[in-house]
Amino acid sequence: VTRDIAHLSAVELYTAVPDDTVRFFEDLMAMQVVDRRGDSVYLHTWDDYERFTVKVTAQSTSGVGRTWLRAASREALAHRVAAIEAAGLGAGWSEAEPHYGPVYHFHDPDGHPYGLYWDTHRYEPTPALRPSLKNQAARYPGRGANVRRLDHVNFLASAIAPQDAFLANLLGARKSEQIMLDGGELAAVWFTVTDKSYDLVYTQDWTGTRGRLHHIAFATDTREDILRAADVFLDAGIHIETGPHKHAIQQTFFLYVWEPGGNRIELCNAGARLLLAPDHQVVTWTQAERAKGQAWGLKTIDTFHTHGTPPVLPPTVL
Amino acid sequence: VTRDIAHLSAVELYTAVPDDTVRFFEDLMAMQVVDRRGDSVYLHTWDDYERFTVKVTAQSTSGVGRTWLRAASREALAHRVAAIEAAGLGAGWSEAEPHYGPVYHFHDPDGHPYGLYWDTHRYEPTPALRPSLKNQAARYPGRGANVRRLDHVNFLASAIAPQDAFLANLLGARKSEQIMLDGGELAAVWFTVTDKSYDLVYTQDWTGTRGRLHHIAFATDTREDILRAADVFLDAGIHIETGPHKHAIQQTFFLYVWEPGGNRIELCNAGARLLLAPDHQVVTWTQAERAKGQAWGLKTIDTFHTHGTPPVLPPTVL
Amino acid sequence: VTRDIAHLSAVELYTAVPDDTVRFFEDLMAMQVVDRRGDSVYLHTWDDYERFTVKVTAQSTSGVGRTWLRAASREALAHRVAAIEAAGLGAGWSEAEPHYGPVYHFHDPDGHPYGLYWDTHRYEPTPALRPSLKNQAARYPGRGANVRRLDHVNFLASAIAPQDAFLANLLGARKSEQIMLDGGELAAVWFTVTDKSYDLVYTQDWTGTRGRLHHIAFATDTREDILRAADVFLDAGIHIETGPHKHAIQQTFFLYVWEPGGNRIELCNAGARLLLAPDHQVVTWTQAERAKGQAWGLKTIDTFHTHGTPPVLPPTVL
Amino acid sequence: VTRDIAHLSAVELYTAVPDDTVRFFEDLMAMQVVDRRGDSVYLHTWDDYERFTVKVTAQSTSGVGRTWLRAASREALAHRVAAIEAAGLGAGWSEAEPHYGPVYHFHDPDGHPYGLYWDTHRYEPTPALRPSLKNQAARYPGRGANVRRLDHVNFLASAIAPQDAFLANLLGARKSEQIMLDGGELAAVWFTVTDKSYDLVYTQDWTGTRGRLHHIAFATDTREDILRAADVFLDAGIHIETGPHKHAIQQTFFLYVWEPGGNRIELCNAGARLLLAPDHQVVTWTQAERAKGQAWGLKTIDTFHTHGTPPVLPPTVL
Repeated sequence: VTRDIAHLSAVELYTAVPDDTVRFFEDLMAMQVVDRRGDSVYLHTWDDYERFTVKVTAQSTSGVGRTWLRAASREALAHRVAAIEAAGLGAGWSEAEPHYGPVYHFHDPDGHPYGLYWDTHRYEPTPALRPSLKNQAARYPGRGANVRRLDHVNFLASAIAPQDAFLANLLGARKSEQIMLDGGELAAVWFTVTDKSYDLVYTQDWTGTRGRLHHIAFATDTREDILRAADVFLDAGIHIETGPHKHAIQQTFFLYVWEPGGNRIELCNAGARLLLAPDHQVVTWTQAERAKGQAWGLKTIDTFHTHGTPPVLPPTVL
Repeated sequence: VTRDIAHLSAVELYTAVPDDTVRFFEDLMAMQVVDRRGDSVYLHTWDDYERFTVKVTAQSTSGVGRTWLRAASREALAHRVAAIEAAGLGAGWSEAEPHYGPVYHFHDPDGHPYGLYWDTHRYEPTPALRPSLKNQAARYPGRGANVRRLDHVNFLASAIAPQDAFLANLLGARKSEQIMLDGGELAAVWFTVTDKSYDLVYTQDWTGTRGRLHHIAFATDTREDILRAADVFLDAGIHIETGPHKHAIQQTFFLYVWEPGGNRIELCNAGARLLLAPDHQVVTWTQAERAKGQAWGLKTIDTFHTHGTPPVLPPTVL
Repeated sequence: VTRDIAHLSAVELYTAVPDDTVRFFEDLMAMQVVDRRGDSVYLHTWDDYERFTVKVTAQSTSGVGRTWLRAASREALAHRVAAIEAAGLGAGWSEAEPHYGPVYHFHDPDGHPYGLYWDTHRYEPTPALRPSLKNQAARYPGRGANVRRLDHVNFLASAIAPQDAFLANLLGARKSEQIMLDGGELAAVWFTVTDKSYDLVYTQDWTGTRGRLHHIAFATDTREDILRAADVFLDAGIHIETGPHKHAIQQTFFLYVWEPGGNRIELCNAGARLLLAPDHQVVTWTQAERAKGQAWGLKTIDTFHTHGTPPVLPPTVL
Repeated sequence: VTRDIAHLSAVELYTAVPDDTVRFFEDLMAMQVVDRRGDSVYLHTWDDYERFTVKVTAQSTSGVGRTWLRAASREALAHRVAAIEAAGLGAGWSEAEPHYGPVYHFHDPDGHPYGLYWDTHRYEPTPALRPSLKNQAARYPGRGANVRRLDHVNFLASAIAPQDAFLANLLGARKSEQIMLDGGELAAVWFTVTDKSYDLVYTQDWTGTRGRLHHIAFATDTREDILRAADVFLDAGIHIETGPHKHAIQQTFFLYVWEPGGNRIELCNAGARLLLAPDHQVVTWTQAERAKGQAWGLKTIDTFHTHGTPPVLPPTVL
């Protein structure tokens, strides 16, 4: 069991209303702006040991930019880079990101850009943000959703099987759960590179478009943080799409909202659930089981199947 | 069963560091500054239907000013004013407080100033603070302790028996619990004017001083709000005196801190506990039972018996 | 402001599967069986100071039997009995209920049976159920939904206006919120006899049937109790109808399930919300506002409008 | 970064009152008895994918028996066995434990027995304990502390430095935090073999005795589970030693009780905190920092330094 990827580090989000999007992350999600460069604003969750967690980049529309992963060691990095390069998905080394050392750029088969690196910079709090407890990255914000860290990214993809192979073979991720349609086709796959039960997810894009985003998710310490956030979002005029409720798949307690730029954001809490079995048997959900909705009986909301970013007109409409 | 007092409305606190005290209530307790007049700043908790909840007044030291109670009706007001006046504790009508109609001023036997009134002004949120749900006073803040409303005042008094008679006979309050020392002397009494199990509390002041404060308490919706607040206080450098824990007496989940001016502030949560029995039998705690500490075994912290505001040198020291 | 009714005390439920219904209340709701008489089983919530909270009576179908209210005093009882009698809704005194003293029986205009009394018997725990803290009725169960006390009853009625007058004029209850249809007709009214924001609710029965039940509700100390209960219900095969979510009206955090006999049961938590204003202004919700669903955007589930007990065939079907 | 140990699996506890100890784990901690063999009873936490989590063995006194660890693969097992054997701490292979395949037995330098294995048996729920969601091991109990899984073991040791080397070199565990006395001596070390911030802890035994236990800990999904458990323990007459509160070291929300046999049991919740940095820098706490007590100011209770199992008379008493 090699674990060459240590963890998911950060994600870049595109937005046409960058000020509103940044304010959403600062005021309602409890992140701190740590840097501004060009069209991008860097935000940090309070217990991230690295310098940033989300990079908000102004664009003409919404969507996901690069997703960064940290390698487990310099050797692990070399090992994975060789595999990715051999698969023809590599795009070479970059030093464009000042908050990391050299980053190896590549794409998944669906075209979502990734970055993999070993050298990094540790987050250093300003005096005003220095925490009382030295085993914590930054001061505890205690406002809004109060998210502790990035949890996972759920990508939309035009086809799942190639992503499934990419995650397993090129990244060395382990699959924990999946949805398999009656015809044997994968509709969604959940992969982990840690002891969490998932870090990277791919969901079938019903429009057939490539490179889109379903959502990015942030972990809170408690379910009560999520309930409190629901009231905060309500009064802030943020669109609450669905929840709070509990997923049957992966059993995550969730709330989905759309940040002002349109990207779907999940607040999630897994309780003490971890995937510790080194020989975990993949849990497969059938089409019928998926149709049953969420754990406590909530029907899955329609927009969960139709809304992705950037928005596209569905093929039937064209 | 006449209920002439509808509820505890607001409290005035004295502080020698008013800016710090106001910032504590705003940033950490989630109140809003609603008015500033002379040496006073008025703050509002988010679900108070009246205009203010705490009045912070700059003074040379800490302590409690006036405590306001709202009568249950105009007739109830007249009824209570007559009784108080007859007892020689009255101080006449005042129109000094612009956020209420005429207020009848009086003192308890220990000298703490009170105000009783019927006419009031409803809180009107500014557009920025308008809540989404119209059955809520102001926008949900979702930061820090996020207190919903004032819960109770716990006064120190040089003698408890006179306060006990005052609350029962002049205010028509009902006693729910008490501590009786082995010699038969009351050490503390908890009285309610509502269906909550207490609103006004008097605790023996071991220094024999008159008119001091033990603490004022604010209710949160959840215990998790209190746990979250503990982390917020820790990083804000606020002195956490004791808790979070659960009182045996009244079973309240609590956290005690000292605001920058030195006044003790409690965050409290009673869950769904109410005192609904119209013929409630007073629960008496003995000296030995009090010595056992809190519900889950926490020993009562020493300063809980020695710290009051304004501070005084104990008689043995003089 | 006279408060002649002290509180809602207990409710009788009918069920065709009494063993299953009793097991539901015992195992999943954390009540204790305290008595069995004839076709009835009496159950007690852990912080009820009286002897029973729910009386489960075997019948051929589901529905609600008698609802008991305790008067605030002997005089208040006499006062209300006189008014009810004068209105022609009285049914005389009964000593049939051994856990109360004499009970005055009457009906609301829709035919739901009520009982009003002053003399009662206090719950005395068996040694095994004696709590550690003497200000608590029974031992803390800590299982399932762990409900502390009965919270409210929501009756279906063939017409709301007569119930509205009945509650206000004959019971002296105070209305806190209501739904008014575009035509000016009341669709639902929430009344309180305490400082809680509601105790008795009437909802329009779309089938036009008289005397039916929408649901009875139990209060938990925390929202987490409700989330935990949802998992317990899921594994016990109990039908979860909707929730957990938060009502816009009254802002209650809720979960609705159907007990094995078919009666709808709500778990509810109001946080620290109380209705303390003696001159509370009724909050009126319009048809359009009701159509918006619950606080955080959940659409109201269809069965919420169609399921009542006992079941009836809707008029359009007949 | 090799991760040869996948996770902590189970612990054997000794007790002189096995029936009471088993009842504690069943009724209050929400475990299930899954097997009884000889003097031992096996108990399972509801989300353990293996057959048992705690083995309670009747003995003349309390203390810890064997601690089981699962290897990450067959190769990892061979790798670690070779290292342990070379260090002279091995005790050979055993097939005595029917719920595992072959187990390699060894001791840490202080004499605590361990077992390391790869082949295992998955937990298969009985029909009555089958969960609704297939990605969960057993039915959700929803009673008492409702612990999801074993979290960590904290051993007392006569000297810490040898344990520190043992964990790092022979088990390949990673140190996350430690207490270093002013003289440079280690007083306690926290090691992880997963992404949790600790799994195995060693604390200096002030009596100098070898092979004793400080506590074993179980993870709950929420802090509210721990608060609820405190009330359950109170009414069940279980000794609550300290808490609920939050550790400064590792930031765990905790409650410590003594099970009827005398062994200290911790309930713990880490929220969403994980240790994901592959190059984590060990956090060192000084003697002065340790003296400050817990995160929110609670002084560390005396018995936390003196109580271990089995009990010994301290040297100064002898």
